[in-house]
Amino acid sequence: MRFDAISVIPQVFDGYLGASILGRAAARGIYEFHAHDLRDWTHDRHRTVDDAPFGGGQGMLMKPEPIYEAVEAVSSMASPRPHVVFFSPCGTPFDQGVARRLAGMGRICFVCGRYEGMDERVYQLADEVLSLGDFVLTGGELAALAVTDAVVRLLPGALGDEMSAQDESFSDGLLEYAQYTRPASFRGMDVPAVLLSGDHGAVDRWRRTSSLERTAALRPDLLGDVDLSSDELALVDAILHNRETGEGAPA
Amino acid sequence: MRFDAISVIPQVFDGYLGASILGRAAARGIYEFHAHDLRDWTHDRHRTVDDAPFGGGQGMLMKPEPIYEAVEAVSSMASPRPHVVFFSPCGTPFDQGVARRLAGMGRICFVCGRYEGMDERVYQLADEVLSLGDFVLTGGELAALAVTDAVVRLLPGALGDEMSAQDESFSDGLLEYAQYTRPASFRGMDVPAVLLSGDHGAVDRWRRTSSLERTAALRPDLLGDVDLSSDELALVDAILHNRETGEGAPA
Repeated sequence: MRFDAISVIPQVFDGYLGASILGRAAARGIYEFHAHDLRDWTHDRHRTVDDAPFGGGQGMLMKPEPIYEAVEAVSSMASPRPHVVFFSPCGTPFDQGVARRLAGMGRICFVCGRYEGMDERVYQLADEVLSLGDFVLTGGELAALAVTDAVVRLLPGALGDEMSAQDESFSDGLLEYAQYTRPASFRGMDVPAVLLSGDHGAVDRWRRTSSLERTAALRPDLLGDVDLSSDELALVDAILHNRETGEGAPA
Repeated sequence: MRFDAISVIPQVFDGYLGASILGRAAARGIYEFHAHDLRDWTHDRHRTVDDAPFGGGQGMLMKPEPIYEAVEAVSSMASPRPHVVFFSPCGTPFDQGVARRLAGMGRICFVCGRYEGMDERVYQLADEVLSLGDFVLTGGELAALAVTDAVVRLLPGALGDEMSAQDESFSDGLLEYAQYTRPASFRGMDVPAVLLSGDHGAVDRWRRTSSLERTAALRPDLLGDVDLSSDELALVDAILHNRETGEGAPA
């Protein structure tokens, strides 16, 4: 899979992507990432990419011309034509479902804003506008890195033996169960005995209950899309009832 | 304000934070960021930070001992004691309100997970567990960078003259209005005439309407907390009605 990013600070991507799991995935050819300097598509001596907003106001906006030229040039650098992604608080919230869908694309090109925002007309170039969340960053670069990270780790072979993308939060629609490693007792805190029992059926039941309890207590909004048995529904109902009556939920 | 981050890839932070607005804010002494290598608090020859999960399963978990030692050591490196932040899909969703609250802290220490997850007992160290969103990343480092970015840009003097944190999405509870810069006509797309009129009152009304239209069309969930005039309520109701009846909403 190929990623392109258009940015005024193209040097920030390699430091993150070169490290650890993502760096090894790139070295194995699982994906490639090309960062491009937006200023390469300016035509004045100062390489200007921003201008003052019409109608007044503080701050500077990104001009449309360099962005159009950059997206057109980068798109033609390889095939297939990329799925062009912009970031904006007005965009679709990025989540694991979006990550799974994007992992099926052959190529993605991110356009990263900076400054106060972008001229509205640039969004005509977007195949998709995403929002990383309801917060404001100084630019789109971290959002592009987060989407790349979440997508690459879903690509076959990307995680190697280090991790699994099968058995984690959101993979079955629930938050992941509580996990423990050695030592079995640490500073007075003991690992739940069932996890040390060697009884795989009991471990599986404990983990499913842990996932359900956490999801019902912390993120009941996620439960609507999950298939639950009648026993599980009863457990969830009990947790939600305790939550409403302020009796506290099981951790 | 001081930030610390504990990570197995501490080298990834400087590349992003050194660039652009955040780099200049650090140079002006608005904030400082110290990344620490978790492996400095291991005691075996292989500097081991992970181990297999009790109860079986794929992947490796982060061990509790190095994390406890690291948080205790880093906390004592400066005063005040830091607000200790972990990241987990089970955490509180990070948003602009959380960013504003964190901007009032003197010091934050991020603990960044990697691999399949962390031993559950480490969360006892957390003053706060945050979630960047409903997606899975290879580690907490990007989340730490995103929180740092969103918080630093709210600190007095951080943005200089380049940007404003006063007049943007979420600052008044709404999505930001559409913005335009030169040229007034670009590839057949014209800037709305009112923005070229010089009539500041009309510009302000157009912008407020643009904000309301976008928020009602794209993120009606944000409207519950916003004070609206009776005219604005009527506008929002009309957009929501159009949306429900599939007639399409104004852009």
